[in-house]
Amino acid sequence: MEAAAAAYLGMGLCAAGFFGAAIGIANIFATTIETVGRQPNAEGRVAKYCWIGFALVEAVALYALVLAFILMGKA
Amino acid sequence: MEAAAAAYLGMGLCAAGFFGAAIGIANIFATTIETVGRQPNAEGRVAKYCWIGFALVEAVALYALVLAFILMGKA
Amino acid sequence: MEAAAAAYLGMGLCAAGFFGAAIGIANIFATTIETVGRQPNAEGRVAKYCWIGFALVEAVALYALVLAFILMGKA
Amino acid sequence: MEAAAAAYLGMGLCAAGFFGAAIGIANIFATTIETVGRQPNAEGRVAKYCWIGFALVEAVALYALVLAFILMGKA
Amino acid sequence: MEAAAAAYLGMGLCAAGFFGAAIGIANIFATTIETVGRQPNAEGRVAKYCWIGFALVEAVALYALVLAFILMGKA
Repeated sequence: MEAAAAAYLGMGLCAAGFFGAAIGIANIFATTIETVGRQPNAEGRVAKYCWIGFALVEAVALYALVLAFILMGKA
Repeated sequence: MEAAAAAYLGMGLCAAGFFGAAIGIANIFATTIETVGRQPNAEGRVAKYCWIGFALVEAVALYALVLAFILMGKA
Repeated sequence: MEAAAAAYLGMGLCAAGFFGAAIGIANIFATTIETVGRQPNAEGRVAKYCWIGFALVEAVALYALVLAFILMGKA
Repeated sequence: MEAAAAAYLGMGLCAAGFFGAAIGIANIFATTIETVGRQPNAEGRVAKYCWIGFALVEAVALYALVLAFILMGKA
Repeated sequence: MEAAAAAYLGMGLCAAGFFGAAIGIANIFATTIETVGRQPNAEGRVAKYCWIGFALVEAVALYALVLAFILMGKA
């Protein structure tokens, strides 16, 4: 297995980061939906944590994307 | 590992998308069963989200299927 | 990697199907235990779904077993 | 990939069995802690199932360990 | 696949330990947040187990890190 092939395989393995980020963001929004539906008064305070949490998990997904692009440059 | 063998392996890895789609659709229908059993009056409104959610998750499974067919064409 | 070695590796990967079947059957029986313990009167009606669900999940495990045997024939 | 290298890789893959056993034993003890904390009177009857369940899941982990040692003998 | 390449792949596989440690630490702190929010009086007693549990799970992640460094020395 030459180095370019290994870099391409590593880019594919970066999708493991997207796996976790997708589950995590879905978990955040599912809990937000459940909480807002149960206590409509708390929407203002809850939405803040929803978007901040979404942004932080999205950042983890972008780490994986950056890692994939770095590997693409080495192929 | 020549290119055709790698394409066949990639087709097999596309089953990871089916893994997630199967769990997701099962999650949607399990929650629908639980909700309809607990609140029979809500069946009309709940079923709408059940089918839309099912279709959207099924679409993700079809992405994996399309990806597998694209890889089959490159083998 | 010659074809026989790949077939043996594929047989080992078929265990991924057993992974899911084991978790699924355990989930069915765990929920049955919990439900029967909470509502003993519902045992007759619940056991029916328990055994049908068990058989259908077991069938998925047998698909993986058949797939492994097909691969064994090709090795 | 010669046979010895494949045997070493197989020994590493045996850790997948430890993965499941660790989660399972943790699940048993977590549920035991929760149950004993909620109903202290049930400790005597619950502990019996806790230790039996622990032993049976531990046995599954030992299967993986035996499998790893068998592979070590073939390397 | 020569030995150095296998060592680099093994270092990458050590990230599986970080996967579990990240989920476990998140589980500990999520439960701590939920418990403290529900019973503010229990914060003193709960925080103790939170930090001890965090340290023990973090230790597992450090095992994986040590393993990766050992593999780096062998590459």
